[in-house]
Amino acid sequence: MGIVVQKYGGTSVGDVSKIKKVAERVKQTVEEGDKVIVVVSAMGDQTDKLVSLMYEVTDTPPRREMDMILTTGEQVSIALLSASLQEMNVPSISYTGWQAGIATEPYFGNARIINIESERIQESIDEGKVVIVAGFQGMTNEKEIATLGRGGSDTTAVAVTAALKADRCEINTDVDGIYSTDPRIVPYAKKLSTISFDEMLEMAVLGASVLHPRAVELAKVHGVNLLVRSSFSDKEGTYVKEENTLEKEIVVSGVAYDEDVSKIEVLDIRNEIGAMSKVFDSLAQANINVDMIVLSEHGAETFHLAFTVGKEEAERAMEIIEKQKENLSFRHAFFEKDVAKVSIIGAGMITNTGVAAKMFNVLNDNDIRMKMITTSEIKVSCLVPLEYGKQSVKILHSAYDLDTENETKIEA
Amino acid sequence: MGIVVQKYGGTSVGDVSKIKKVAERVKQTVEEGDKVIVVVSAMGDQTDKLVSLMYEVTDTPPRREMDMILTTGEQVSIALLSASLQEMNVPSISYTGWQAGIATEPYFGNARIINIESERIQESIDEGKVVIVAGFQGMTNEKEIATLGRGGSDTTAVAVTAALKADRCEINTDVDGIYSTDPRIVPYAKKLSTISFDEMLEMAVLGASVLHPRAVELAKVHGVNLLVRSSFSDKEGTYVKEENTLEKEIVVSGVAYDEDVSKIEVLDIRNEIGAMSKVFDSLAQANINVDMIVLSEHGAETFHLAFTVGKEEAERAMEIIEKQKENLSFRHAFFEKDVAKVSIIGAGMITNTGVAAKMFNVLNDNDIRMKMITTSEIKVSCLVPLEYGKQSVKILHSAYDLDTENETKIEA
Repeated sequence: MGIVVQKYGGTSVGDVSKIKKVAERVKQTVEEGDKVIVVVSAMGDQTDKLVSLMYEVTDTPPRREMDMILTTGEQVSIALLSASLQEMNVPSISYTGWQAGIATEPYFGNARIINIESERIQESIDEGKVVIVAGFQGMTNEKEIATLGRGGSDTTAVAVTAALKADRCEINTDVDGIYSTDPRIVPYAKKLSTISFDEMLEMAVLGASVLHPRAVELAKVHGVNLLVRSSFSDKEGTYVKEENTLEKEIVVSGVAYDEDVSKIEVLDIRNEIGAMSKVFDSLAQANINVDMIVLSEHGAETFHLAFTVGKEEAERAMEIIEKQKENLSFRHAFFEKDVAKVSIIGAGMITNTGVAAKMFNVLNDNDIRMKMITTSEIKVSCLVPLEYGKQSVKILHSAYDLDTENETKIEA
Repeated sequence: MGIVVQKYGGTSVGDVSKIKKVAERVKQTVEEGDKVIVVVSAMGDQTDKLVSLMYEVTDTPPRREMDMILTTGEQVSIALLSASLQEMNVPSISYTGWQAGIATEPYFGNARIINIESERIQESIDEGKVVIVAGFQGMTNEKEIATLGRGGSDTTAVAVTAALKADRCEINTDVDGIYSTDPRIVPYAKKLSTISFDEMLEMAVLGASVLHPRAVELAKVHGVNLLVRSSFSDKEGTYVKEENTLEKEIVVSGVAYDEDVSKIEVLDIRNEIGAMSKVFDSLAQANINVDMIVLSEHGAETFHLAFTVGKEEAERAMEIIEKQKENLSFRHAFFEKDVAKVSIIGAGMITNTGVAAKMFNVLNDNDIRMKMITTSEIKVSCLVPLEYGKQSVKILHSAYDLDTENETKIEA
């Protein structure tokens, strides 16, 4: 018996019938003897609808007013969920971000949580109520309503778990756990029973959109145990927690895949101090995220630079590079969109040799050309031609003995 | 140059294009040199939609959670209006009820405003910003979100006007003022340039749904000058203010009309102490509003009772009465739906004799049977057969010299 924080995302509260199902799940948890705090997102595509409404008024929405309109989305969800619970005779109370004491930085659109003044939540818990907190939102010191940006509801859930010293934080979502790779690509993908924070971070960054990296980082810092599981099934989910020694035996935990990637190459840049900064500063100023970066010197005079950006940013990034042609004095720049990124991830990698070499051998043996390679302590990523992307995932998943015996049935 | 409070109701902000028009109107007021505070309702039928959503979840919505969901309606409007103004280069800021310092009683669904802590509004006004306040909502002492019930946005506007000592309070709506009667019935209805608070109260109660009685009462107490006018035309509206002596020359200001009325008669009730209370307590408990009441004794033993309720409540009211047949020991009860209420209203009535007599004569001369009569200091109401209802309005409007020379064109 303890305190459990449950987070339900937009698809889990997509309509009234789903909200009722969530209420049943919460009721069940209460009946098992736990005290429950629920963090909910806005219903389904409500956030998108509110954004569209704002863009009907102006092409340049003030961020403050955007936050003002967006936070109504979660406020609707919490009221409906709380009313559903009371309809089932489960005492409950809903709180907006500011009512729940979620104090944020004084920024709109992307504020970080500074602190949670948790007295009000604690009091309601002590009164035997299920507390329902609006995700994604908080209040600044100036009593302004601010949103937490992407992954905001996950982050709210983890922060509330930490502040209330709750026993665990359940991320209830439309998948039933974290898989060794995307089951839509590899039918033999395996659901992981446990994954470390660092592995999860690499997974999330690489495109597994189940759990936002911000939330994982926050959970890691505060030692919050996360459980990722399906909103609507009782299947065991995946625990995300500090890695333990046993787990390290498994060298590679998963294979991640990302098609939203383009490669840009800049050839023969004059090798001057500050040349690299010029490239990446200008991209950062244009709000373009750079992912993989590979640099190779060509003698002392020039170097080649290759990096990846999102597919939608490729043209814009190229324009920015071309504008600096004189300044950087490079010979030629070009970009390639038909590429995909395949990564193997595993906390055990760091203590095992030959893991990366095996990846390269496997791809090589299958005549799949590696166009870029980057490595970290728990991840090796390869850029491959788009047409071989999914095939690469399959053969790597198999090569690292991740396949299950039976096909995975995808269900929520 | 002063502070003007402008209130725009749901139909005035019904969609994005209307919100933009409201923004233009506000901008125009700013350009005329006034500082503006805007109070807005939820967009069009948004409140109804939110109520329906809640009823999909439960037949007995908790009032607290109903307020939680309803207040999002105005929060959406204020954000969109503020963004519209900024798009037009008019500095602005939106505030929810709690941000605007609107302190209410600790009741949900129907809280009254206790106080407005107006520092935050004042500061933003001093910074040269248009302040946009969510109508219909406030915060209790316990930091709970509460709605103000029917007429809430009008009430917010009047309360803000009083708290900020603003020069006037404009109620911008879908009619261009208060008319001497319904122009749809009497084409020669006259737009009043001025009407007293008391007359407005009688008008509003009798069905002129332009301005809520609560707001009128509050305006009367605080001496707030109201101006009712169209949201989308520059026509002169109607001022609602303390009656002045000149105005008293006009004996009857308007003729009100209401078809949503049924008559119930209970004959030969045993004349015991508490008999009246039994009838009206039981109706009140069933949430049935009683309007006109007429009682006549029949000797010492029994009395007749007649009263009116809304058409939709007639059957239910009859059932309640019939259930008490034994208890009250009456002879017979019946109801009549085909009736309508016609009222003449005028603050000057109190000092003029023969006003009521003239009404009865006029109706009598036209062979219109009066089925019930009630009077107050500034109002006389007659229940007439429904088929003669509109005709009664016309002939009374004419008899009291209220007709204009030209037909009134109804436009917003």
